[in-house]
Amino acid sequence: MVILATERLCKALGYSFSEQTLLRQALTHRSHSSTNNERLEFIGDGVLNATIARALFLQFPQLNEGELSRLRASLVRQEALAEVASALQLGDYLFLGEGELKSGGHRRPSILADALEAIFGAIWLDGGFAQSEATIMRLFHERIGQIDPSQALKDPKTGLQEWLQARKQQLPEYKVVRQEGESPNQVFEVACEVGGLQISANAEGPSRRAAEQSAAAQVMQQLKERYPGKRL
Amino acid sequence: MVILATERLCKALGYSFSEQTLLRQALTHRSHSSTNNERLEFIGDGVLNATIARALFLQFPQLNEGELSRLRASLVRQEALAEVASALQLGDYLFLGEGELKSGGHRRPSILADALEAIFGAIWLDGGFAQSEATIMRLFHERIGQIDPSQALKDPKTGLQEWLQARKQQLPEYKVVRQEGESPNQVFEVACEVGGLQISANAEGPSRRAAEQSAAAQVMQQLKERYPGKRL
Repeated sequence: MVILATERLCKALGYSFSEQTLLRQALTHRSHSSTNNERLEFIGDGVLNATIARALFLQFPQLNEGELSRLRASLVRQEALAEVASALQLGDYLFLGEGELKSGGHRRPSILADALEAIFGAIWLDGGFAQSEATIMRLFHERIGQIDPSQALKDPKTGLQEWLQARKQQLPEYKVVRQEGESPNQVFEVACEVGGLQISANAEGPSRRAAEQSAAAQVMQQLKERYPGKRL
Repeated sequence: MVILATERLCKALGYSFSEQTLLRQALTHRSHSSTNNERLEFIGDGVLNATIARALFLQFPQLNEGELSRLRASLVRQEALAEVASALQLGDYLFLGEGELKSGGHRRPSILADALEAIFGAIWLDGGFAQSEATIMRLFHERIGQIDPSQALKDPKTGLQEWLQARKQQLPEYKVVRQEGESPNQVFEVACEVGGLQISANAEGPSRRAAEQSAAAQVMQQLKERYPGKRL
């Protein structure tokens, strides 16, 4: 049964392991055993970041490194990885401890994202970098192709405002709630409130504008969690 | 002359470029021209982080991912990269704008570190991942071999105390200078002062201990900048 199950997963990944124990380790959460996927996740994060960096570099010759970096962050953030993992039905194959099993650990985004990265690391060890890169590209090709830099690179305040406008919601209000120190060591704390949705967040920054952007980003994060289906 | 010069660099790197323009771009600072090394640095950072991650993973089977991550950070931080770049005499090959040339840009750690990463990225594009990985391993092999995890993984407070004790200096003093909010959203600001050396730093954290560690790390950073020859 287990063998059949991972065969299905390997088919979805487009990669067959020589060393089955590596796959098993990549699927094992720390709640299950001390031989788990945490170390594999560390190198998997490496091959994932490198692969996505190169793919974006080649696809967007006009973007600078800061823009490429932000695009990459949007592709490899936990939520995006969990979506890729869910499409592979990765949760069905995980080895979890009792507690995690009972509390729905196989659907938890952090657990799914970590296991996916661990699989990329395991493929690197098992078949070499090129195999891991190829697997990542198969899984991310479509997402990379669909990225619209003009949307993805919007600053958080603009993004939040447009999201709310598109849904005919009240626009956010920003207030400086604290200001300390002297320039250039000033600290601003700003509150961002979306009255209609009863969402707010506070954030600090070295300038009012920086604190506002950071607070807007936090509000967007809350919106994403509350309305997971809606693209931001 | 230029051709001879980069030949010497390629010998030091152990890699010869098929596409000489890639090497030239990797050596070009943004102050010199719009076709510069910033985008190459982005992918170079990717191959460097992945390669060092895998090397540490293989060398230290007993370390967990947090420890591996801290070891990697110590190897790829700007100062360490600038040292590797200096050993290659990379500064001699850089294309800098007038201003940077006059102000000693070819010795600036950030410029050297960025150019080194850009070279790793250029090799990846020119000869494939394995060539870039091999070049990185040639340059970092010795440093990786010399890492002593029990030293490198010390927390900043312990590290700072031992550094000062070994030099018969006064020990640091920590003071809470600000405390705000209610648990679990408390913020502590701590000052760390080394009286004898007239060095101090403030840092914030969610607990007194976290703020102390962070302040100690900043003091160590200042010590490193002031006494660059001494290993911390």
